[in-house]
This record gives sequence, structure tokens and C-alpha cells, in this order.
Amino acid sequence: MSDIETRLAALEAKVHELEDQVALYQLMSAYGPLVDSGDAEATAGLWTEDGVYDWGGGPAPTSNGPAPGTPMKEGAAGAAYSQAAIADMVRGPYHQEIIQGGAGHVIGLPHLRIDGDTAVGTSYSRLYRSEGENFRIWRVGANRWEFVRTPDGWRVKYRTNRVLNGDAEARELLRRGVE
Amino acid sequence: MSDIETRLAALEAKVHELEDQVALYQLMSAYGPLVDSGDAEATAGLWTEDGVYDWGGGPAPTSNGPAPGTPMKEGAAGAAYSQAAIADMVRGPYHQEIIQGGAGHVIGLPHLRIDGDTAVGTSYSRLYRSEGENFRIWRVGANRWEFVRTPDGWRVKYRTNRVLNGDAEARELLRRGVE
Amino acid sequence: MSDIETRLAALEAKVHELEDQVALYQLMSAYGPLVDSGDAEATAGLWTEDGVYDWGGGPAPTSNGPAPGTPMKEGAAGAAYSQAAIADMVRGPYHQEIIQGGAGHVIGLPHLRIDGDTAVGTSYSRLYRSEGENFRIWRVGANRWEFVRTPDGWRVKYRTNRVLNGDAEARELLRRGVE
Repeated sequence: MSDIETRLAALEAKVHELEDQVALYQLMSAYGPLVDSGDAEATAGLWTEDGVYDWGGGPAPTSNGPAPGTPMKEGAAGAAYSQAAIADMVRGPYHQEIIQGGAGHVIGLPHLRIDGDTAVGTSYSRLYRSEGENFRIWRVGANRWEFVRTPDGWRVKYRTNRVLNGDAEARELLRRGVE
Repeated sequence: MSDIETRLAALEAKVHELEDQVALYQLMSAYGPLVDSGDAEATAGLWTEDGVYDWGGGPAPTSNGPAPGTPMKEGAAGAAYSQAAIADMVRGPYHQEIIQGGAGHVIGLPHLRIDGDTAVGTSYSRLYRSEGENFRIWRVGANRWEFVRTPDGWRVKYRTNRVLNGDAEARELLRRGVE
Repeated sequence: MSDIETRLAALEAKVHELEDQVALYQLMSAYGPLVDSGDAEATAGLWTEDGVYDWGGGPAPTSNGPAPGTPMKEGAAGAAYSQAAIADMVRGPYHQEIIQGGAGHVIGLPHLRIDGDTAVGTSYSRLYRSEGENFRIWRVGANRWEFVRTPDGWRVKYRTNRVLNGDAEARELLRRGVE
């Protein structure tokens, strides 16, 4: 019986890891559809209540995060320091103009490092915007997603997005996420 | 023994779900290579016999589908209402010109909702076309894939693709596919 | 007891296949972050010691590979015929200029065929390069990745990348990788 028990326990651990991998794929692939359809609450609900989305306006990715109470910064390089502020970003005029003009926020297949109840995802984001008959690539970003397991499943705790414009910061962010 | 039985059954159910997830990734990632290489039969074989591909020329995504016998519509915004019509699309002059000029039909990491023997995938599609030394983004689409499990595995029953040009229809399509 | 044994063995085989699928996703999603951050050793470490990366300068994808000792060829269409040569490519002036100017090498969700200790992945690659405030798509490639299982996990044995410029070679490469 002990052999059966050992094999069962090994399988359970492996299946648990595979389920985490798929759950994080599901979380990340939900971001684009929610933000492009303008669902502010559901987009923000991918994050924890104190979750941060820094798309270029926040502190350097290697620092310890923003001062408490830092206000939301709209625009091409902004940051939002809570779930409520992320919802505000989606509702805000800057984002609304982008999606009403035609936009796709596309998250690529991530590289994931899962460690118990936390995980890090590294991926590229692209923002395609409608222009005449075709599309323009407005932004290609290097993204670091820090996840935490909650009673309701995985959530984003901190997402950092840096434009791949040649700055060392974006390249370093990519490097940190892959062993 | 009952504990072992319970754990085995739980594992079997979980592994079955993981296998479905991967099988749908495999189905969706086969579309681009097949359609870009011009394999009409194999592309159409991803669908059921009565499968539909509506890339902009069909009814609104929320309606109940086309009238029976609706003919295939070629072009930038077309639709094909059977496996045979999808193969005709691939063989048709419009698609052949696109792929012989250099094209990549790229399906991004989908968000999947699997419910027994049916599933819905939500993803972005991009059609890159060769232009001089580089490429142009000809189209970025919001895609809803409705899948059905068949004796031969998962197949596409209805795929709707809408250009993300700012119309509410494309945004609504993205929203519907994510919980 | 034999029923339990049979079910356990079936589960173990299925979980092993799922783990292979995820391990190959992880390997392929590591390429972009490593090559864009300029980590020559880690990029090359995705390959076997005798691994090949042919991005347009090598023999036709259906031939049997290069002559031994073929030197590395830098540039838009080059090839590197060993792990050490792949590291040289990353360190070389051509690649360094690309990444210091702002670049994203993005590998899409692959279609995988796993057969015991070897596997084939078929995917699209895109090289986005920073240009003014936005990005240009410098290259969209059809990719065939031939993998081998080693004592340290899956590694790339041969990667062929062909620009989707309309040539039959790139289309055939896509077709070969999908059943």
C-alpha cells in the first residue's frame, strides 16, 4: 500500500503544479479581453485589493514600490496603486479614447516561475491600435507580473510594464524573470 | 481503500480537465500553420462538418447564426458556413494572394472556458503581411471560438472574428468570453 | 488492486505528457527574455552543445544540416552551428545594435508534437523594433524547433526560422510541423 500512497502523493503534487500553471495562463489571458472591452471592475479584479499596475510611471522595477497613498497617474506612462485605482484607469478618458478608437492589448505566452503561493510571470505585451485600414504597434512592453495565491485563486500583486525602447531597465526586467 | 479511490477519481477528473486545456491550445495553434501553408482540407478539418467561420461577413456575434445554405463570402470581411466552404476559402484567390505574398495568421494565448463537452475560447488574431523588407499589421481581430468535443477530439463549431476597429461588437465579443 | 495499479499507471503517463508540454512552453517562452536582455550564455544554454540556430542563412529546412565546422554567419539571415556560436551571435555587434535600439523577440503559442524523448514545435516569431514613439515589425518568421530530452531537461537541437515573405520554404516549414 505504501507504494500506491507514494505514487498518489507524487501525482497530486504534480497535478497541483500543472493546475497552477494553467490558472496563471488563464489569469493573464483574461487581461486583454477585459481591458479592451472596458470592464473596469473585472479588470481590476484580476489584482489584489492592494495590487499595483505600473505601466511606466512608477518607481524603478527593482525598488521597493511606491509610497502609500501615491495617486493614480494616467497617460502613456502611468501607474495605479490599488485595485480601485486600476478600475479608475480603465474608466479614465485616456484609456477610453484608446479602446473606442480600436485597440488590442495582447499578452504573449508567459514564462512562469511558481514557488508555493507566489509566482512571477515574464511576458511581452503589445498594444495594437487601429489606423486607417490597418493597425499600428503603439507599444511593445516587457512585463513582470508578481502573483499571489488568495482564497479566491491567483491574483496579480504587482505588474510592471516597461516599453522596450532600448533602456537597460526593460531588458533587466526580462532577465530577472527567467532562471 | 475508499480514500485511495476518492483521490484517484479526483486526480482523474483534474487530469482530464488539463488534457482538455492542452488539446484546445493544440487545436488553436494549428490554425495559423495550416492556413498560412494553404492546406485547405487540414484547415477545414479543425472544424466540424457544419462548422462556421465568420471573419466579418456574417451575422452579429450575438445572433443565432446564418440561414441554412448561405453561400461563402470571400474577402476581407467574409464568412463560410460549412467545413467544405472553409476549404473553399483557403483555396480561393483572395486567400491565395495573401499567403503567396507572405503572411502570418497568428493566434494568441487564448482564455478558455471548458464546460463538459463544449468550450469557448477568446483570443486575439493578427494578420501580418510582408511589405518591402518588413511587415505591416493588416488586421487585429477579437475572436470567439465555440468548440465541441467529438469522437475524434475537439473541433471548432463556430468561430467569429471581428476587427478591433472601435466598434462595440468586437469589444462585446471579448467581454462575453471571460467570466 | 490491479484496477488501482492500471489507473495509477495511466495517470502517470498522462501527467508525464502534460509536464512535457508545459516544459516546452517554458523553454520557448524563455528565449525572448534571454535574447532581448543580451544574456549570451543563458540564451545558448537553451540549446544542446551541438545545437543549431538557423535564422535564414543555413541550408534548406528539409536538408540534413550544415557541414561540420561551418562558421557562424551574422546578420538578418544568419546561422550558428553550436551552443558556443549561438552565444557569439548574442554578443555580436549585429544583435547588440538591435537590442540596444529597443527590440522584442516574441515567440507565439506553439503547436507541439511530442514523441518520447524528442519533440517538434511550430510557432511564429516576431521581431518588433522601436521606431520613434512606436514600433515597426521588422520580421515575422515561421519557426520549426526540434527538441531533445537531456538529463537536464528539454533542450533545442535545431531551430529553423524563415521569414514569411511568400517563399514556399517558409510555408512548407509550417505545414510539416502540424499533423
